[in-house]
This record gives sequence, structure tokens and C-alpha cells, in this order.
Amino acid sequence: MAEISAILADWGTTNRRAWAVDRDGNVLDQRKDDQGLLGVKDRAFEASFRGFIGDWLKAATPAAPIVMAGMVGSKLGWREAPYVAAPARFGQLAEHLVALPDVDGHPIRIAPGFSAREDGRPDVMRGEECQLYGLWLSARADRLCVLPGTHSKWAGIRNGGLDGFRTYMTGELFSQLCGSGTLAQLMQPDAPHDAAAFQRGLSVSEGASAGALLNRLFSVRSLGLFGELPGEALASYLSGLLIGAELRDATVGLDGSVAVIGSSRMNGLYVSGLSAIGVEAEPIDGDPLLRTALLAIARDAGLL
Amino acid sequence: MAEISAILADWGTTNRRAWAVDRDGNVLDQRKDDQGLLGVKDRAFEASFRGFIGDWLKAATPAAPIVMAGMVGSKLGWREAPYVAAPARFGQLAEHLVALPDVDGHPIRIAPGFSAREDGRPDVMRGEECQLYGLWLSARADRLCVLPGTHSKWAGIRNGGLDGFRTYMTGELFSQLCGSGTLAQLMQPDAPHDAAAFQRGLSVSEGASAGALLNRLFSVRSLGLFGELPGEALASYLSGLLIGAELRDATVGLDGSVAVIGSSRMNGLYVSGLSAIGVEAEPIDGDPLLRTALLAIARDAGLL
Repeated sequence: MAEISAILADWGTTNRRAWAVDRDGNVLDQRKDDQGLLGVKDRAFEASFRGFIGDWLKAATPAAPIVMAGMVGSKLGWREAPYVAAPARFGQLAEHLVALPDVDGHPIRIAPGFSAREDGRPDVMRGEECQLYGLWLSARADRLCVLPGTHSKWAGIRNGGLDGFRTYMTGELFSQLCGSGTLAQLMQPDAPHDAAAFQRGLSVSEGASAGALLNRLFSVRSLGLFGELPGEALASYLSGLLIGAELRDATVGLDGSVAVIGSSRMNGLYVSGLSAIGVEAEPIDGDPLLRTALLAIARDAGLL
Repeated sequence: MAEISAILADWGTTNRRAWAVDRDGNVLDQRKDDQGLLGVKDRAFEASFRGFIGDWLKAATPAAPIVMAGMVGSKLGWREAPYVAAPARFGQLAEHLVALPDVDGHPIRIAPGFSAREDGRPDVMRGEECQLYGLWLSARADRLCVLPGTHSKWAGIRNGGLDGFRTYMTGELFSQLCGSGTLAQLMQPDAPHDAAAFQRGLSVSEGASAGALLNRLFSVRSLGLFGELPGEALASYLSGLLIGAELRDATVGLDGSVAVIGSSRMNGLYVSGLSAIGVEAEPIDGDPLLRTALLAIARDAGLL
């Protein structure tokens, strides 16, 4: 077995994942658990991290670096890694690493997130910037990308960096509307995905202004009330309506395809939604991109 | 004291109100309590209603009618009064009254709600149609109206009826986003209204598509995170963003003023929001309109 030359991690709010890799980024071992920031008591991050991958530290080559991304660099994390303001090039990630005291002789660094500003409104990401860097490294091409999730992030890679990006709260709003309130009442939230209802929701999102969305949302209830959509189809219809709104806004004026980065259940919905509105989509697994970027950041910073 | 010639009521899901009036609609007595449909056990509507206004029944002239509107006519109410499909004239309300067995010799009727359809999506109202009828009776003028509430209703009165109407879920969405989730985290929900933050939210709603709303909502969090809006101002900002979206959509192409009907705390926000986007608004108390309409319906139906 090759030697562990670097330890890479994505430590989020509710989960964390880590990979032990060789110099070329080949995965020698990997782990995930539910000890996100919220699971760490009394800010005992180091002890928690040793509990997670302590055996890798012993097995790794001397001074093999540890590079982490995600909410671990937020105010509530192990140590704050302030946002780098976009427009920014990916090379700045290595320049703004935040150092923690070495662990058993291994340098340990947290990558910063990116911030952006549009019409005076700030926006932020932590973790996604690394996947985007990974895509740039693997394709070296300008590209519109979306990372679906509770908060999906849209960013255009341009010339090795980001000019800006946008967060859409689509996933969270969907969860809230399915969880309680008027729309939830007639829904059967555990019903399987209904592709036809999803497509119907996508069509209803066409041409909708912000206010029209507040009106069209009510059709989730009224279609159920009038028996025109069964309870099992309402969540898929709502999902189509919300995702359709996001996709239409985020792809205005787009000439080309969209990279749909990630591995969540939502990626399939995004790919089929983009196809339905006539936009070509390429699904890309986010984990290899993340590892590629974290390893590159270690190299950019002279740690490897 | 004049005699009670009619008993008028608005019986909703969580509250009910009733008025004892003379032949000219002058209010002789009025009551409200929290025994909405949800408060009535085992469908004992008659007993509950007798408990509420039983003394009026004894004091009223023989055969004085009782006319009710609101959710009491829904599937979950005392008796279902099926929706009248718009386009509809207000005169149809009397034609589609649903009769219950007389109570101590008093005829008792439930007014139907209205339904509408736009691009295949159904919409419904129960209770608001009576206030709109009341406005028609008092002004005899075509008019764009809004009835703010958890679900606000927009309807254009035209020639003694409605061609259609729209429900906006603005109020409910506001409550849900203030109650839990990412935006709620930084908010101080009990803070007093912040007029400047409300106006800022109104501006941010300008030109927003449905998807752009899903993005701009995130600024409630990011402005808080960056300390650019204090926690006490975030709910007012969100309120401006959502109400602004509704107002802009509902007044597209409008030439004239909007009647803002009701008495809720939200009416003031709607009036100030309309003014901010350059639309004249006239606030109108909804209760007298409701009584005017219910009494007229009693007359239209030959009960008075």
C-alpha cells in the first residue's frame, strides 16, 4: 500500500468526510460520520478530529499535511477562515489558508470560503469553492455550474476563478413548505417522486415573477383541494415549481451547458429540470473534484 | 332599542364574529370569540352557535334570518356551500345560499365562496367575496381590491361581480420563514417594525423573477451575517421583500388606485408598500362591508 501523503477533509455543520490520499491523490482510505460542528461539544475540535482519523496520522509520512474545507472555517468552527471576496482566482484559496497548531508534526490548514456581492447584497459559500476549483483543474474551461443542496449555489467559472455567485434557498423552502402549513396539509411527503407532477410544476414556473410565485404556490393546495392532483403528487409538483423557478432565473441568457456538481438526490431533479427547459446539463460527481482541489491547495501552499 | 331584524356572522377556522342588526343594518350588538371551526367538538355547530348568540335569537323579530359567511361553509364546516365559479356576479351569492334547518323559527343560511381558474390552476375564497360585494354596494364602481391576510386575495370588481381573483401566500410564507430555518436564526421576531428595513426589502423585490426571489431571500441571512442589518430589522426587511413582490405582481398594468380592505395589522404595510411603488391605495374597513353584503344577501334571497 502506498503511503498517506495528505489528509483531506470536508467538515460541515452536520456531517464530515475525510480521505487519506497518496501524492497523486489516489484514495487510500475514506471515512464519514455525523460529527459535524453541531456534534462537537465544548469546541473540542482537535480531540474530535483525532478520534475520527487518528490512525491515519500515525500511518502518514512525516509532515503530511491536513487540508480542510467547509463550515469548520466558519465563526462556529474550529478556527475562522475569513471569506475571500470574489471576484477571486482559485489560487487565492492557498494564499488565505488559516493555520492551526501542527498535530503530531502534521501541518493543518483550513481553506477560506468565498464571498460575493450583487446590488449591495452579500452572498457566501464554504466548501463549494473547492469543488469549483477542482472542476477548473480537471477541465480548464469556463463553465456555468450549480451545486444543488438545501441552499444551491450557482457560479460561473471564468479564467481560473469566480466573478461572483448566487445562493438559492430552493431546497430549504421546499422542506419548510412540506413540513408544516397550508401546503403540507394535503401532501403525502413520503410518496415516491412523481415525474409527471414534477414536470407540471416546472411548466407552471414559466414566466413567473417573484410575486407570481407567491400566487402559484397556492395551486399546490388548490389542485389538491379540487382533486386535480393526488396527495402523493403534490410534493413533486411543488419541487418542480420551485426548482423550475431557480433554473429559469439562473440560466437567463446562457449559451452552453450547465455542470451539475454533487451527488445528492437533488442532482437528478436538476438535470431533468434543465433538460425540460431546454438547457443541456452534465452531471459531475463532486467528491473527486473536492479532493483534487484540496490536494492542489496543499501543493499551491508548498505543503506537499 | 330597535328590534333585531337579522343576525349576521363570519365564522372562520380559528375565530368567529357576529352582529345583531336592525332592518337598516345598524349594529345593535356584536360579539366575537375564538370558537372557530377548530374549536367546535363533534360537529356540534348548532349548540355552539346557540351558546354564542342564543339570547339574540330570543330577542329577534319572528323569522329574522341568520346569514353566515366564511369557512363555516367549507367541507369541514357546519354544512358545505359549494363554490360559485367566477366569472360570477355578486347576485349569485343569494342564489346559492345553503339552508340549514330553521333555528327557533329563524331561517339560517350559509353563503357560498367563489372559485376561479387561471391557466388551469384553481383558486378559492370564502368570506372575502362578501366584503367585495359590500364594496360594490357602497361604491358601485369597478375597482382593484386586495384583502391582506395570511393568504391575501386580489380581485378586480367589475360590473357587479368578479371575473377572477388570485390568492398570494405571502403572509404564510413570512410566518414560516420567521418561525424556523436559516433566516429565522439571526432574526429577533418580536422586534418592532423597522420602516427603513421594510422599504429596503421593497426595493430589493424590484424586477425579481420567481427564481430571483429564491436567491434574494438569502440576503435576509447574509445581511445579518455581515452585520449590515441588525437582527431587529431582519423581519421587517423580509416582510418588505415578500410584500413588495406581491404588490408588484398584482398591480402590473394597473391604471388607478387599489382598495385595501380589512382591519388587520398588515393593511398598513400594504398601504405603505403600494405608496412606495407609486400606486395610490385607499384603506377601507372590511367589517361594515361584510355586514352590508350579508344583509343584502338576506334581502336578495327574500328573507328580509
